Amino acid sequence: ADDDMRAAADAHNMQLTKPPGALGQLEDLALWYRSWRGGENTEISTPQVIVFAGNHGVAARGVSAFPAEVTAQMVMNFQHGGAAINQIARVNGATLDVVALDLDQPTADFTQAPAMSEEELVAALQAGWDAVNADADLLVVGEMGIANTTSAAALACALLGGEAAEWTGRGTGVNDAGLSVKTQVVAEGVTLHKGQGDGLETLRRLGGRELAAMAGAMARARDLRIPVILDGFICCAAALCLEHTQKGALDHTVAGHQSAEAGHARLLEALGKPPLLQLGLRLGEASGAALAIGLLKGAMACHASMATFAQAGVSDS
Amino acid sequence: ADDDMRAAADAHNMQLTKPPGALGQLEDLALWYRSWRGGENTEISTPQVIVFAGNHGVAARGVSAFPAEVTAQMVMNFQHGGAAINQIARVNGATLDVVALDLDQPTADFTQAPAMSEEELVAALQAGWDAVNADADLLVVGEMGIANTTSAAALACALLGGEAAEWTGRGTGVNDAGLSVKTQVVAEGVTLHKGQGDGLETLRRLGGRELAAMAGAMARARDLRIPVILDGFICCAAALCLEHTQKGALDHTVAGHQSAEAGHARLLEALGKPPLLQLGLRLGEASGAALAIGLLKGAMACHASMATFAQAGVSDS
Repeated sequence: ADDDMRAAADAHNMQLTKPPGALGQLEDLALWYRSWRGGENTEISTPQVIVFAGNHGVAARGVSAFPAEVTAQMVMNFQHGGAAINQIARVNGATLDVVALDLDQPTADFTQAPAMSEEELVAALQAGWDAVNADADLLVVGEMGIANTTSAAALACALLGGEAAEWTGRGTGVNDAGLSVKTQVVAEGVTLHKGQGDGLETLRRLGGRELAAMAGAMARARDLRIPVILDGFICCAAALCLEHTQKGALDHTVAGHQSAEAGHARLLEALGKPPLLQLGLRLGEASGAALAIGLLKGAMACHASMATFAQAGVSDS
Repeated sequence: ADDDMRAAADAHNMQLTKPPGALGQLEDLALWYRSWRGGENTEISTPQVIVFAGNHGVAARGVSAFPAEVTAQMVMNFQHGGAAINQIARVNGATLDVVALDLDQPTADFTQAPAMSEEELVAALQAGWDAVNADADLLVVGEMGIANTTSAAALACALLGGEAAEWTGRGTGVNDAGLSVKTQVVAEGVTLHKGQGDGLETLRRLGGRELAAMAGAMARARDLRIPVILDGFICCAAALCLEHTQKGALDHTVAGHQSAEAGHARLLEALGKPPLLQLGLRLGEASGAALAIGLLKGAMACHASMATFAQAGVSDS
């Protein structure tokens, strides 16, 4: 982040026709956004949403309410415009890209072996890196992958500690028996892979292709100085792997929402990212973060296009 | 609200390609919206924002951080496109109408007499009623009026009880001495006018023209079955007067946000309206409610345009 740019943005903000601070968090968002991208009069015009899809070896253990085939079926649904994220991206004026990652080749069951080889991890990170549009002025990344809340819970538990049960939730809506199996799978994975390396190595062992691709896209956005809105539990688990590899790696990100998935509130707290929205969503697909695009657009529209007290002839006290 | 329509909307919602309930409050919003307006495949396309402006006799008592001239100056700013609400309405695809109500004729100082005569109250209610576009499919009402948090605090205190200090906040940013005067003014007004009639009579005695106009617009929206998003403390105080006159009068409304103004959280609780956003805004001008337009648009876009499990060939379990 550029401290000079932030100071300039702060000075501009104080001249706008409103009582100081009256736009609350919108003002904080505008200063943060401008610390990554210049432009006193620049609004957000080209937000990009990317949904990465992958399949998971642990799906065979019965951790999800839906069969693994649903990952590919939902990719088709995204491509045909029928999913929630298609509608939410559209009403927020964002482009939507869908990247399916070797869906016919699930990761290994992480209770038995690392989920990915080094080559597979690098390929997935690269797919994420390559998917970012260099002309985007805001990025949202999300995912689709049956069983991926199991992977996210294992990553959070391995990197942040605590019991498997504290991080394991119902995902798309698994029943009590399924939740019990899921918690056991998370515990087994964490026991096998915890403390075996840094954030990226943990991502290789307990993550999945779509999680790695989200991490790669976040890193590319940092390289391009594109601010990022984080989505739900799985997206934040991928982000956590970056933060545990390089402190400050998420300074160009904000949390779009707090999902209803059990571990997400705690994960956001660990990341130090208060959510913009709390609407009880638990869908993934980047849906919550994409809803928050409108808030960022509003924040930057006010910052960029409001009149100053002098311009408008309004008394400032 | 139409219960049959709501049931039809619920049945449609359950077929959409997402786990049941995974869109959280967006699903509740969609069912509520459809209970007021039909149309399984109808998105929100013509939202209207109206900002009403009025001046207050109690401004002369020094209850605000800004002089009364700022009301008219800000109306000019709205008309020239320079205020926050201009930007927020624009990025949310809403039209913006500004209605200035006899700005050169402030209401009476309510510590001495009723703020408005019956004729003045009726004229302001009528101005609000007339400002609603019958073709709008969503309405947001907001206000501008130096000293109007004083009026709102007095209304809330008179209708809901409690001490003046519990309802009186810093508004646009009054200092400690100003807050003390403001609290005293609220207490005097409440002592003089409390219990003298129903919600509308209390609105006449302690309200203001822009508050009455907001109430009139909400009533007209009910008549036209146009759902309404409530804005901050002042808007909700106007709404409270309707609810105290006719129970259920706000069933066609949701709370757009919880503002940083001291009494708003408590007022929303009294209205039974949990806020969609909590971003610490305290600007008025319909700004918080207009930000929430994007959430309603997202909710209805998902409800109206998502594929069903059958259409998309996605396994529903």
